[in-house]
Amino acid sequence: MSLNRVTIIGLGLMGGSLALALRRAGLATHIVGCGRAERLRQALELGAIDSGCENAGESVAESDYVFLCTPVETSIKLLAQIAPRLRPGALVSDVGSTKNAFATAAREIFGESAGKRVMPGHPLAGREVSGLAHATADLYAGCLWILTPIAARLQDCLVPSHYTLLSALQAIGARVVFSTPVEHDRTLAYTSHLPQLLSTALALTLESAFGEGNPALRVHAGGLQSMLRLAGSEPTMWEQIATSNQQNLAAALESMETQLRTLRQSLGSPEFRSKFEQAREFSKSLKS
Amino acid sequence: MSLNRVTIIGLGLMGGSLALALRRAGLATHIVGCGRAERLRQALELGAIDSGCENAGESVAESDYVFLCTPVETSIKLLAQIAPRLRPGALVSDVGSTKNAFATAAREIFGESAGKRVMPGHPLAGREVSGLAHATADLYAGCLWILTPIAARLQDCLVPSHYTLLSALQAIGARVVFSTPVEHDRTLAYTSHLPQLLSTALALTLESAFGEGNPALRVHAGGLQSMLRLAGSEPTMWEQIATSNQQNLAAALESMETQLRTLRQSLGSPEFRSKFEQAREFSKSLKS
Repeated sequence: MSLNRVTIIGLGLMGGSLALALRRAGLATHIVGCGRAERLRQALELGAIDSGCENAGESVAESDYVFLCTPVETSIKLLAQIAPRLRPGALVSDVGSTKNAFATAAREIFGESAGKRVMPGHPLAGREVSGLAHATADLYAGCLWILTPIAARLQDCLVPSHYTLLSALQAIGARVVFSTPVEHDRTLAYTSHLPQLLSTALALTLESAFGEGNPALRVHAGGLQSMLRLAGSEPTMWEQIATSNQQNLAAALESMETQLRTLRQSLGSPEFRSKFEQAREFSKSLKS
Repeated sequence: MSLNRVTIIGLGLMGGSLALALRRAGLATHIVGCGRAERLRQALELGAIDSGCENAGESVAESDYVFLCTPVETSIKLLAQIAPRLRPGALVSDVGSTKNAFATAAREIFGESAGKRVMPGHPLAGREVSGLAHATADLYAGCLWILTPIAARLQDCLVPSHYTLLSALQAIGARVVFSTPVEHDRTLAYTSHLPQLLSTALALTLESAFGEGNPALRVHAGGLQSMLRLAGSEPTMWEQIATSNQQNLAAALESMETQLRTLRQSLGSPEFRSKFEQAREFSKSLKS
């Protein structure tokens, strides 16, 4: 099983790691990287890609599988750019953090054949660091990789190239699960995007209370560090997530604001303990 | 240097670990444990204490140092109970998560000598697990241990027993820092209590959006786990923290609600990115 000739557009943490993982597992005969000249030079030096090409359209012309490894909105623009240059049987996938905007764009560009030509994907891989320098062939080992087929029914869109993609992702260690673009975006608004913005808002709250460099803030335990870890994430990716999943995310944030207000109003009353215990039970149920 | 005869009231994670750490470092000639009969039996079996006593007043009668290792409000009640039984030179400390209510109680009980008789303390040690079963002599190795002298000026309250306490805490690996009860509680409201309630509120938000056992929630990355870790904390301790630090915590929560609302209203606008970058810079400054 091999993806044969592969193009990876965007050689940051995600794309670079994908290239390294596919190469290590022997899943590609040739990997074309697409990005800026300097980045291509680094990727060639790392042995992540076999050849580089600065032009997205050109980079996909001979490939069987194309991975868009750029932030969501960039991937949507690139999809329109590369569409006319794709080989007839080529399959496009991506690694964007939201899926509905990308799936919608695919439907607009490819019409009825969108389900066959494009398989949106989202690997849930660590993101506090970014850039090719942090790329590793192990990034996807054990990670969940959500595929969100575009057609309403799986059987309407699963073609041989989809099975090959699925097998390749499993071969690099990903645990592949299926969802729909709409359900994916709603779920991730709560399980990924909300936690990110909580961490961001916590940092802003601390800064507004203490200012930067206040020695009082040296006094903190591990709990704070774990809650602030996500605040260090890469802004461009999150800006595009926030825009492309705005409605779901606004609902999740509003619900969170309500829960915080309820907890605040319950301080010192028996309601506080029952809320606290309810949250504790729920968090335990998520672990098991 | 030795604390000589020590009483530890409350043999959970904190008290049990303190007993084990003092024993391993050879800092006590005799450790009296105080708690329920079953707990005392377990602590004796573990070798954490030399003798057990169910009555708090009796347990302190011959000791030079007394540690209250119970939740804040319990420690305040115990302080009043043991006060008449303390030896003249004995020093009382505690490990409670808020300090102002305890310091105020000490002033009421001991009057002008409160600063000499009581040294409130707060070790910032991991707390997602609780109970004697998780106690370890290493719990305080490398952890910050905040001491909040009661008198306004350090020189008005530092007596030889305070120096011995300080040295003993350093000998079990704690990094001792000083603060005041009021400043401690304000700072910890933001750096410890707020992160805890964010995690709790996140769990409640997820439960209200998905219900328990929803398979959609199996799809999540490490970011969610780290944000939910604190939600599993022990309710009794946090109920008492919330009550004893209610004003500071309400202010911190309100500020957090405002930040979340601002982020929500900025979704899809340039303001979002600037807020995100501001939080990122601040979280980086905290690490260095």
